[in-house]
Amino acid sequence: MTLDACLSPDLIGHHSLEGRIAVVVDILRATSCMTAGIGSGVSGIRPFENLEECLEMRREEYLIAGERNGSKMDGFDLGNSPYDYMQHHLKGRKIAVTTTNGTVAIERSRQAEEVVIGSFLNLTAVTNYLRQKKKPVLIVCAGWKGKINLEDTLFAGALAERLHPEFELECDAPRVALATYKGMKNNLLDHVMNSSHALRLQRLNISKDISYCLRVDEFDVVPVLVNGEIRPAGVSEV
Amino acid sequence: MTLDACLSPDLIGHHSLEGRIAVVVDILRATSCMTAGIGSGVSGIRPFENLEECLEMRREEYLIAGERNGSKMDGFDLGNSPYDYMQHHLKGRKIAVTTTNGTVAIERSRQAEEVVIGSFLNLTAVTNYLRQKKKPVLIVCAGWKGKINLEDTLFAGALAERLHPEFELECDAPRVALATYKGMKNNLLDHVMNSSHALRLQRLNISKDISYCLRVDEFDVVPVLVNGEIRPAGVSEV
Repeated sequence: MTLDACLSPDLIGHHSLEGRIAVVVDILRATSCMTAGIGSGVSGIRPFENLEECLEMRREEYLIAGERNGSKMDGFDLGNSPYDYMQHHLKGRKIAVTTTNGTVAIERSRQAEEVVIGSFLNLTAVTNYLRQKKKPVLIVCAGWKGKINLEDTLFAGALAERLHPEFELECDAPRVALATYKGMKNNLLDHVMNSSHALRLQRLNISKDISYCLRVDEFDVVPVLVNGEIRPAGVSEV
Repeated sequence: MTLDACLSPDLIGHHSLEGRIAVVVDILRATSCMTAGIGSGVSGIRPFENLEECLEMRREEYLIAGERNGSKMDGFDLGNSPYDYMQHHLKGRKIAVTTTNGTVAIERSRQAEEVVIGSFLNLTAVTNYLRQKKKPVLIVCAGWKGKINLEDTLFAGALAERLHPEFELECDAPRVALATYKGMKNNLLDHVMNSSHALRLQRLNISKDISYCLRVDEFDVVPVLVNGEIRPAGVSEV
């Protein structure tokens, strides 16, 4: 088995997705929210790049979640805080979501054999899932508007640490991610709080969200993309 | 002053080059060769993406150096080993060179206020030059066919270690590079020898070159791009 990492969605063209499991990661905050939602009983989450298409899902009784540049959008049912996704009344409901970076990374990963949603919140669950599947893995980091970001790279490193050497590191990007994670893992929160993306988000007063998104193994769930919708792995289409 | 890093030339569109000094790096081996050449008395090195344009420089008494996928090209005067560039008879001569990744990175950096050639071989010279210039810096890593590679990322980290905190880290890419360098600097050669790019190159029997390219401060020279040709900084056009 091999493990590779694509640290920006703009580099996806250099990777083959065929026959691979793509683990999409957008720690702040799309894939953390998806993990929290699916882990809290949300039955499906449908990501949209396009705002209008997202809003149309109201007709099908989806709740609408949205964020642009880190802020909740007016008139939406949920924002992009993982806490929004853990509310009791969401159990069994479906959510349509539009986000800045996470949705792009999911869209660009669709050619993969399977798309898995990864975050620190379900790190061990994803690790075990990939070990069982025994397929080549590509970690696809959402980054920030095409640039590499620290928190997604750290997740790639954390997953590489758990899977290597069982999975061979295919290229240098996972080596870089792994070294970064090893150097920072003992004070992950401090490092991420000082990263450029977190500094931007702190202006929006979401340091509570950032802390939560760096918690490890809050949920034993593996959300996967099935027919364009994110659902718990193993649960067939409803 | 600020410092940013672009870990693949394919991400250059996300960076502004205006008013910045671009430090182009292709450790294995283009910018190491350029440093060794200029440091050994070569008077100018002209990089070409296009093979035919490169060959035409023979008419102007340039020596021709070339490499594709790590191998020397037939009929060329020099290959892409730094040792080729340090021969006595090259003193005062000019070289036209075509390489796989390094030339692309130089081409894509031309909008910068100044293009500097960086390598471990001239790390301190480049560091001091940037400190004197007091301008925002973008490190442009050549990578490997658009992907991130370890050795160029490590150079970005080494330069960041020397310039930070005098230069503020602008985005997360230099943070990632710095953490990678800190984790590997005590056994740089082992890590690079196990990187994907070096493993490819070892098939070509160039471990001697790789060792040389990781030596620090062999030359006290800063090659810069002037009218499309690389020359020692401070020397005006001949």
